[in-house]
Amino acid sequence: MHFYSDNATPVCPEVMAAIAAADHADHGYDGDAWSVRLDGAFSALFETEVKALWIATGTAANSIALACLCPPYGGVLAHEEAHIVVDECGAPGFFTHGATLMPMAGDGAKLTPDAVRARLRAIRPDVHQVPARAISITNATEYGLVYTPDDVAALGAVAKAHGLGFHMDGARFANAVAHLECAPADICWRAGVDALSFGCVKNGGLVGEALLFFGPQAETRAAEAARWRKRSGHLFSKGRYLAAQLLAQIEDGLWLRNARAANAAAQALAVGAAGRLIHPVQANELFVRLSAQEAATLRAQGFDFYDWGEGAARLVTNWAQNAASVAPLAQALRALDHG
Amino acid sequence: MHFYSDNATPVCPEVMAAIAAADHADHGYDGDAWSVRLDGAFSALFETEVKALWIATGTAANSIALACLCPPYGGVLAHEEAHIVVDECGAPGFFTHGATLMPMAGDGAKLTPDAVRARLRAIRPDVHQVPARAISITNATEYGLVYTPDDVAALGAVAKAHGLGFHMDGARFANAVAHLECAPADICWRAGVDALSFGCVKNGGLVGEALLFFGPQAETRAAEAARWRKRSGHLFSKGRYLAAQLLAQIEDGLWLRNARAANAAAQALAVGAAGRLIHPVQANELFVRLSAQEAATLRAQGFDFYDWGEGAARLVTNWAQNAASVAPLAQALRALDHG
Amino acid sequence: MHFYSDNATPVCPEVMAAIAAADHADHGYDGDAWSVRLDGAFSALFETEVKALWIATGTAANSIALACLCPPYGGVLAHEEAHIVVDECGAPGFFTHGATLMPMAGDGAKLTPDAVRARLRAIRPDVHQVPARAISITNATEYGLVYTPDDVAALGAVAKAHGLGFHMDGARFANAVAHLECAPADICWRAGVDALSFGCVKNGGLVGEALLFFGPQAETRAAEAARWRKRSGHLFSKGRYLAAQLLAQIEDGLWLRNARAANAAAQALAVGAAGRLIHPVQANELFVRLSAQEAATLRAQGFDFYDWGEGAARLVTNWAQNAASVAPLAQALRALDHG
Amino acid sequence: MHFYSDNATPVCPEVMAAIAAADHADHGYDGDAWSVRLDGAFSALFETEVKALWIATGTAANSIALACLCPPYGGVLAHEEAHIVVDECGAPGFFTHGATLMPMAGDGAKLTPDAVRARLRAIRPDVHQVPARAISITNATEYGLVYTPDDVAALGAVAKAHGLGFHMDGARFANAVAHLECAPADICWRAGVDALSFGCVKNGGLVGEALLFFGPQAETRAAEAARWRKRSGHLFSKGRYLAAQLLAQIEDGLWLRNARAANAAAQALAVGAAGRLIHPVQANELFVRLSAQEAATLRAQGFDFYDWGEGAARLVTNWAQNAASVAPLAQALRALDHG
Repeated sequence: MHFYSDNATPVCPEVMAAIAAADHADHGYDGDAWSVRLDGAFSALFETEVKALWIATGTAANSIALACLCPPYGGVLAHEEAHIVVDECGAPGFFTHGATLMPMAGDGAKLTPDAVRARLRAIRPDVHQVPARAISITNATEYGLVYTPDDVAALGAVAKAHGLGFHMDGARFANAVAHLECAPADICWRAGVDALSFGCVKNGGLVGEALLFFGPQAETRAAEAARWRKRSGHLFSKGRYLAAQLLAQIEDGLWLRNARAANAAAQALAVGAAGRLIHPVQANELFVRLSAQEAATLRAQGFDFYDWGEGAARLVTNWAQNAASVAPLAQALRALDHG
Repeated sequence: MHFYSDNATPVCPEVMAAIAAADHADHGYDGDAWSVRLDGAFSALFETEVKALWIATGTAANSIALACLCPPYGGVLAHEEAHIVVDECGAPGFFTHGATLMPMAGDGAKLTPDAVRARLRAIRPDVHQVPARAISITNATEYGLVYTPDDVAALGAVAKAHGLGFHMDGARFANAVAHLECAPADICWRAGVDALSFGCVKNGGLVGEALLFFGPQAETRAAEAARWRKRSGHLFSKGRYLAAQLLAQIEDGLWLRNARAANAAAQALAVGAAGRLIHPVQANELFVRLSAQEAATLRAQGFDFYDWGEGAARLVTNWAQNAASVAPLAQALRALDHG
Repeated sequence: MHFYSDNATPVCPEVMAAIAAADHADHGYDGDAWSVRLDGAFSALFETEVKALWIATGTAANSIALACLCPPYGGVLAHEEAHIVVDECGAPGFFTHGATLMPMAGDGAKLTPDAVRARLRAIRPDVHQVPARAISITNATEYGLVYTPDDVAALGAVAKAHGLGFHMDGARFANAVAHLECAPADICWRAGVDALSFGCVKNGGLVGEALLFFGPQAETRAAEAARWRKRSGHLFSKGRYLAAQLLAQIEDGLWLRNARAANAAAQALAVGAAGRLIHPVQANELFVRLSAQEAATLRAQGFDFYDWGEGAARLVTNWAQNAASVAPLAQALRALDHG
Repeated sequence: MHFYSDNATPVCPEVMAAIAAADHADHGYDGDAWSVRLDGAFSALFETEVKALWIATGTAANSIALACLCPPYGGVLAHEEAHIVVDECGAPGFFTHGATLMPMAGDGAKLTPDAVRARLRAIRPDVHQVPARAISITNATEYGLVYTPDDVAALGAVAKAHGLGFHMDGARFANAVAHLECAPADICWRAGVDALSFGCVKNGGLVGEALLFFGPQAETRAAEAARWRKRSGHLFSKGRYLAAQLLAQIEDGLWLRNARAANAAAQALAVGAAGRLIHPVQANELFVRLSAQEAATLRAQGFDFYDWGEGAARLVTNWAQNAASVAPLAQALRALDHG
């Protein structure tokens, strides 16, 4: 059993069925019967008017969002361990035509309003310095922590006060909502978020995420994003297969069921790894202290995962697991302490 | 029955089966069991060492190829009706960071060596003018014509003599090979082509094309292309589903069977439309003179297609058709003349 | 005596004196006593509120103007022989991050409203095609022709009707105004121009042109242009030397006196070259039919100039000449006919 | 008397004389009699074959150098307070098409080999992370410290070992050489530097720096830089005025005489400010602890300078000063301690 990444899991059956059901001729690109339903389906889910585009990957969704929020000469405040900073090979710089990522520190890959305000104060308002124009946070974060509605709203207030666009990388948005048991709207537009990369692939999809825009500028930005999507080679000719996956996820709650399963599996492991946890476990990732020998012991029992620097490991659970299915690893972790 | 585009067709059953067969956990991105077989499978097909990357769309494959062949301050010679010139919303300019497309005229969207040489002569070799650095042709062309091995080789010789990279947009490469009954190699690397966008989606795929590099610089360029692929958000986390489609197409000849079916359908229509043809029919596209009233007559019988300017229409056949299945339209076309 | 280019002439004495007069310590960049006077001086000259920035070169001024008028996914309509199209090594593509130049034909390097409208009609309004977003003309043109106030206004009306930004490359704006004897405003903002590259170097300057913005968006665009200027390495630390040149040109009419001298020299040559003129002579450039032997004859008499393709030559006059000083060449041209 | 910046000083008389002496017609751009001498003059100064281009500003010289050393998907290691990081409005991102600046800490704005190696170790060699491709240091640094030949060589060795291009921002290169009393070559190509931005404006010039390339790739890179220079609007049509300034500086040692004067002035102030110095004084900048009241006292005596955060100030000396001329400020600083 592997805990490498929720990226490495199969497609969930409902999504695969939706793909098969979309397999007949229709209009190309995003003119098909599935794509045209996206705005409505996401608007229902988020209880407001949403403009939604399918986008192949999270990297592309994040980058196109930032291209819509930040000019080439601007900067994007983000955590120094954010996916956009460390794992996208400079994609945001590509899509924004050279905008500057402004990495910041913060526990558990979370930004705080105080840190953001301090960073903003340090920028001289002359043409020699790059002005901050956007802020991007990841929810759940790269360390599996969750921004609460209040957390997001506090950052949203700073963004608004300083005229910054506000983007959320929601590769694991479902896991965050499942943890918080809040309305999806509570941690995005109600808290000031302008653009959300809504994850699907890690949560059981085959390919495709959604890029959502909220608020009065949603329509303008979505129209611009549609240009970026085409211009970056992301306008699939058979877009219905992406749209169908997204609809399968959100129209009957599958996205949350899947996320709850993954979160529950993570909680079960957290019990087994109590005392080893580097960060609180809120979504579907665990970062645990683990010696090289302990790691070898677990691997010898068939559990695969990535090391996370020296003396630590990352365990990622996914939609296809649950508390019961990961019990063997929970047990094996416990056994390490009592070996 | 529609003849809008081969983009608008379903996925062929063998490809859908391959996707389903790839639906189990594996390594992410392009580290999976399918992706790692691409180089070998394409090398076998092309009878030389090939470096192959899956890429979501033809627009992205074309643009990444050009980014590997042309610096930002260079130019790309291409037909003025080439897909890269008129239908990609400037994607080549995006990926190449502003390289200049140099559109040229030519019958049937084909470039000729003489025209290329004349264009090259007109460029002053100083820093004020954009130097040509690459040439891109489409085979089969946007008007359904096919460059023969000799045609390609003649352009390849010009490219070599002038130090130009040579790219082929092969969105309908299969249809060209099916028409020529030649070895795939004959119209690409043996004729001097450095990079080929190998079409899959129009030919029965769900999503994904292949970008192939040939020759001594293949490895370097493919490594660079891998960076561009990630940087442009095209490195899918579950890349195995793209690789599996490509393998299903090429490992047992499906790609050619599909193309032959589409071509045969086009030939059947060509007979029906004799006297109306604007271009010879060689691949799977027909451009026919058709008055507005004639078009209406056909549409009233259930045949859908796009107008192509005034008094003309485009008919595109696809893998799911054949001579028999399009006989009703062939008949209807004939009937227009004898109505 | 050379007629290569007005680029190759010395600096006129009044400008050199202004540079010397600016040679004492002051604030850096554009905070000095000269730079801060530019807006006012150009506003007076153009009889409206103008935002003015000094920019090192015409290429940079043109490119920054276009970057403020056209998004990366947009297109710029321009003559196929415009400087921005053929002599800037793709600079507009660099500054606009890949916007597409849309070259058009037209006599004497002039665009016509009909041609522009026809080009616009040919663009499909979907995301696959690059939308035109700006139009750029050169006045006087690259062939020394002048757009009249009516000519410009007719294009300005098309621009307005289609939501296009309107830029004028005024490398030889002074020569155009000197020819027309109109108010400077008549061929720019009064006729719908949003941004003007105002030439200085060809007209007696050492280094530096002005980029001017007109109309309700002038302030926003100028602020953005100031970012592009810095970001492209064009914010000189001792900007006062550029500002001083511009002020010396425009504050007491030097720019027009210089242009009139160059134009008068061109007219004198035009008389001498009657019967050889390829284009009417309106500004300070002549394009004349000249055999290789005739060219050699003139060069043997000490007249230097560039060939302009086969059987033709370009003669450019400049501020340091006048009808009397170029009389020997006028005479030599006449002598060719009566040799 | 002001100590704002060496940017804010007049042009030194020898440079102004050189400009006046270049004021006659010649070939345009860089084909003139002065520009063609640059390679030779810099080769003599640096005791090796050098390719040299005049460039308007240090920001442009730095950015073009980086564009020649680092691909868009690469990264540039630099100090977090380097000019390229904090004072160029993202120009390196513009010219490199989105390459990533990788800011690092270090005393006095200096990088150390250990820090560089540690940063390199932290980068995974997969396509998800931006690979470091270049290192850029400033000599003298933004805090007036000087890298010795050994310091540079140690970094050069790391660069070579990791295949990184090595750039030096030499806006105050003259001050560094004057301090070290070494051969110019000792702190650049002999120590592994590939490209040097050679400062002129701060050291008495009007406009223009030189971009120098060393080593076996010098010619290729310089040819590419010539393209970038044109493409970024930096190819002045009357380039002789820039070349003449550079030649006036280096052909008879003026650049070192000017730098020695500025350094001597700084040393004189350093004596006066003993006990207040935040960094050792090696070049022509002093960073001194100074209360708001003390700053006011000095300003009341006619000394102008910039605050440097709270409780500190920056004093920059220049070519037009020397130990004697700044004695009043040295005295005033001492007096603060004994008031």
